[in-house]
Formats: sequence, structure tokens, C-alpha cells
Amino acid sequence: MPGEFDFISWIHAQQRPHKSVRVGIGDDLAVLNLASANPASPPRHTPGRVNSGGAPGRADGRSAEDLLLVGVDQVLDGRHFDSTLHSPESIGRKAMNRNLSDCAAMGCLPAAAVIALALPADYGQDRARQLFSGIAAAADPHYCPIVGGDTSTWPGKLAISVTILGRSLGVAPVLRTGAAVGDGIYVTGPLGGSILGRHMTFSPRLDLGRQLATYRPLGNPCIHAMLDLSDGLLQDLPHLLAPSNLHPQLGAKLDPTRIPLHPDALELSKTSGHPPLHHALTDGEDYELLFTSPVQPPVGIRIGTITAAPGILLGDTPAPRGGWEHAL
Amino acid sequence: MPGEFDFISWIHAQQRPHKSVRVGIGDDLAVLNLASANPASPPRHTPGRVNSGGAPGRADGRSAEDLLLVGVDQVLDGRHFDSTLHSPESIGRKAMNRNLSDCAAMGCLPAAAVIALALPADYGQDRARQLFSGIAAAADPHYCPIVGGDTSTWPGKLAISVTILGRSLGVAPVLRTGAAVGDGIYVTGPLGGSILGRHMTFSPRLDLGRQLATYRPLGNPCIHAMLDLSDGLLQDLPHLLAPSNLHPQLGAKLDPTRIPLHPDALELSKTSGHPPLHHALTDGEDYELLFTSPVQPPVGIRIGTITAAPGILLGDTPAPRGGWEHAL
Repeated sequence: MPGEFDFISWIHAQQRPHKSVRVGIGDDLAVLNLASANPASPPRHTPGRVNSGGAPGRADGRSAEDLLLVGVDQVLDGRHFDSTLHSPESIGRKAMNRNLSDCAAMGCLPAAAVIALALPADYGQDRARQLFSGIAAAADPHYCPIVGGDTSTWPGKLAISVTILGRSLGVAPVLRTGAAVGDGIYVTGPLGGSILGRHMTFSPRLDLGRQLATYRPLGNPCIHAMLDLSDGLLQDLPHLLAPSNLHPQLGAKLDPTRIPLHPDALELSKTSGHPPLHHALTDGEDYELLFTSPVQPPVGIRIGTITAAPGILLGDTPAPRGGWEHAL
Repeated sequence: MPGEFDFISWIHAQQRPHKSVRVGIGDDLAVLNLASANPASPPRHTPGRVNSGGAPGRADGRSAEDLLLVGVDQVLDGRHFDSTLHSPESIGRKAMNRNLSDCAAMGCLPAAAVIALALPADYGQDRARQLFSGIAAAADPHYCPIVGGDTSTWPGKLAISVTILGRSLGVAPVLRTGAAVGDGIYVTGPLGGSILGRHMTFSPRLDLGRQLATYRPLGNPCIHAMLDLSDGLLQDLPHLLAPSNLHPQLGAKLDPTRIPLHPDALELSKTSGHPPLHHALTDGEDYELLFTSPVQPPVGIRIGTITAAPGILLGDTPAPRGGWEHAL
């Protein structure tokens, strides 16, 4: 659909404040404080924090709150996988791992998941079971029970939607907003070329995400903003630069020599006609964490710096928003 | 897919106990007690209740617990609606109302929802906005914020998946298991013929569901078991008769003269070749509540009685499991 992002912006604009919603549509996961919406409890929401896009609990440092996080991510035949190429088990794994990656990006722990399976009429029991087994195999190591589902056959293609519930358990969720001028920009691993197969087999960075969210070298959380790289570095980085209650529109200066190139990016460049850096900047589906911090974090490779001047520089060259696809 | 129900049974059998899961796959919504899974809290789960299928909190009467409920329900083009016939707005309404109906069936209050939209490549902004507006229009009267979503275009048909979060807020969720011999069987409204249009325009029985869940004429909840009618009375009733920790396999005796016939059932019978009762028993998508109670409830039409002998009788005639479709 032309204007897919316009539609998402429009949905975003439809949101109204709700007392239980700390963070709504627009981050990796929504953040809910159901206790504040309990009629039996005194209201605990603070003006300027509820649904503000600000970092909940940041000012408190480590929070005793147990916030509920929730989000949904779907994988669709012909868009996120190809059912003629990929095994049902690997498709199921990807469906769950994309959601676990969202938990990683918030620094929360997965708590439960529900799944909706839309199966082609001729899909058959065997493939359906393999699909579910892939979902469960991805969830089990993270103690994430699958507690509900809806399975339908239909005259359409394979579609899988996974909704994940996460818990903050005393660690303030790390939002997309919150970066500050001078922060270093970091990634947790090398980028590019995931289409060679890694986009189906990646491991969500749950341990790293939690480690980063809990890292408090000076008594306060040091990770200002974080997301997981799904659309590609140049497409996703602007989400960390958007204006918020805390900061105006920001920019970024990337050092192209420091961006870690995945071997897949090198491999793909042999046939694609693009340099490996192009793949690292634009391919997407890396599912590494991208985050900003004013101090050296315990993990991560520094690739640049947050700037006051809006826009993204690659060295001294402006990078077109959304990537190089049309610029090269 | 042949054996769709077999697959669901298989998934059900894959479940393992989890300390935070009171009720997993198999009811209208899953019931979670996240407090019991909080490492910072003492364990509060009781053997025999966790994931037992028994009625949580029943023995306590009104429970002070705030349990979290969660479930997912999808609507698919060609299965639950026809995008060449139905407006995007009505499709969106149905997607949300099916989920709100699940909240009604548990007697809980909706708390938040997330949605996954898989849009055909040529769907366009206008229809996408109408779709979302329908979802929001159904959710808003029930103070159910839409807090997250995932929108993708794809080379497939329109698919919408809605995940609903609900809260018990001190009222024990009413499960599908819990019916007892001698209970009356009740429905909240007339049945049959929903395909004439009502399947798109029904109102979820949230107020009635909550009213029933909170009704305690003798100090204890009087509604033993409840669900919402989506697949048809003869298809859904067996879910209230399944064996559980509380009871062995049960049966039901329905009084065919008391089953309320919707005017749509009468209308449809003029052209279908089936009597109106056939439509009331088998059509499905009524989204009325079906429940059992040992005492006269505040709302509902009594249509039969729970029996110790397994099987469903229509008067004195055995009704085939799953309906009359193949029996007539």
C-alpha cells in the first residue's frame, strides 16, 4: 500500500490519553500500568508521564513497579517468509522471535504469548504442528508460555500473528524516545545481508536487552533509548531521533568505518552490485539492538553520536532518510 | 483443513503447567496471575488450581485478586467476512466485537487491545482508515484503548487479528468448566440466522456477562460455566460438558420448545429448506452468552438442564455432536 507509514502515523494520531497507558502505539511494545487504572487503587499516574512518550520510571532509577508490556507482530507469506522455501518450523520460530526481539528492545522479560494462525485450506495437520512446534521452540528457552490462540483455515495464504506480554519487574522499560545530544550510538552486532538466511534464524537479544536496561554505573539507567533493527539501520535510526517531551528533533552522525559488517553483507555484495556497507545500512531484519548511551555500555559497538542538528550524516555526507535505495 | 479441531486439541495437549497461568488454551480467554510469578513476591499458587481448568476463585466467592485475561481472535476474508460485500468499517467492528464478546463470556472488563492488520497491496489508505475506525468505534464505548499494532501490506487477502486484555477486578472469571448436574442451561437472547447480517453487527454482551459473573444471591457466584456462542449451540454446548477436575463428563437435555428463535432464523427458513430450530441450533455467530446456573439468574432464557448422562438430548431425541448438518 502506498503510504503505509502515513497510515501508521494516522493511527498514532488517533490515540487519546488513557490512565492505564504509559506508552501506546509507536514504541516496540506498549507499556501499561494496570494498577493505576484499578478503581480500587488511588490514581498513581503523573501528568507528563502518562502516554507522554517520555521514559517511564527514568527519573526514579530502578522502579519497584511491575509494568505490563504488550505488542503484536505478524509474519506473512510472501512478505516475511516464503512458504515454498522456508520450513513451517522455521516460520514459527521467526514469528515468535520477532516478538521476543521487541521484549529485548524494551529491556523487559517475556511473560506469555497468544498466537493467531490463518492456515491455507490445504495446509494440513503435519505442517500446522511443525509451525506450532517452531513457535514453542523459540518461546520455551525464555519461559514464555503460549496461553491462547485462534486457529482458522481460510481461502488465503499463511499468516501468523503473535502477541507478546512482557513484564518490567522493577526495571524501567527503555523507550525509543530519550536519546540526548552527545550520546553514543551503539549496535549489539554486525549488520547486513540477512536475506541470505539470517532473517529466519536470528536469536532475539533478550539477555543483552535486559543487561543494558539494568546497567546503572552512576546510579541511573545509562541506556537512553533503544529499539531492535528490523527495517534497516537508516530506516530505524530516525525513530531514536524523533522529538519528544524530553528533547527536540535530534540528528545523528555515523562513522561508516565503524559500522560492523556481517559476513552475509560481504557475501551478498559479491552479486548485488552494492558495497557491503550499503547492505549493513539498509537491508533490515538484523534484529540486533540499536541504542544510545552517554557512557560506555557493557556491550555494544559504537557507530556514531547523537547530534543537535537534525538529519543523519554518514561521515560528512547526509544520508537520505529511509536509506540509500533510491540515492545510489 | 481437515481435522482443524484435532490440531487445536493437539496444541492443548502441548501445554505444560506454568506458575503464572491459571487457565491456558481452551477457554474464551486465558487467565494469568502475574503476581504469583513475580520473583519478588512469595509464591501464591495453589496446587490443583494452577492450570487445572477449575474455576479460579470460585471457592473464595468474590476475589480481591486482579487477574489478567488475554486472548486473540482473528477475522479473515472469505471465512468471517466477505470484503466484496462488507464495508471496512463493519469488518473492523466485527474484529473487535468478537474479542469483546470473549471478555463478556469470562465476566471480565476489557483493559486494552492490540491489532495486527494484513492488508492487500491495493487496499489503500481510505479503506485502511475506515477499518481502523470500525475497530476503534467498537472499542471506545467499553473504554478499551488500542495500545499497539502491526500493519503490513502483503500479496494476500485481508486478515485482522485482535488481541484483547481483560481484568477480573475482584470478580472471579467464569470458565467453560464448572457446570454441575441439575444446573439450568440459559442463553441471553434468540438464536439463528445470523448470516443474514447479524454476524457483522452484533453487540457483545459485556454488561450481561459482568452482571452474571457478579451475581451472588447466596453469597457465592451462581453462574457455574459460561461461553459466547460463536460456532452454534450444538457445537458450543459440549464445551460446557467436558470433564474437568470438578466434574466428570456431563450431558445436557434441551427443551426444543424453549430455544428462542431469532426472527432471522424464521426468515432464513423460508428459503433454506430447514426449520427455524435447525438454524437456532447450528448456525453460529450469535454471540449470545450460554451459561449454566443452579438458581434462577437475573437474566437469561432457560433452554435445558445439565444431566449426568453424557450426550445432548433434544427433548427425548439424541442430538448429534456438532449439530444436525449431517444428520438431517
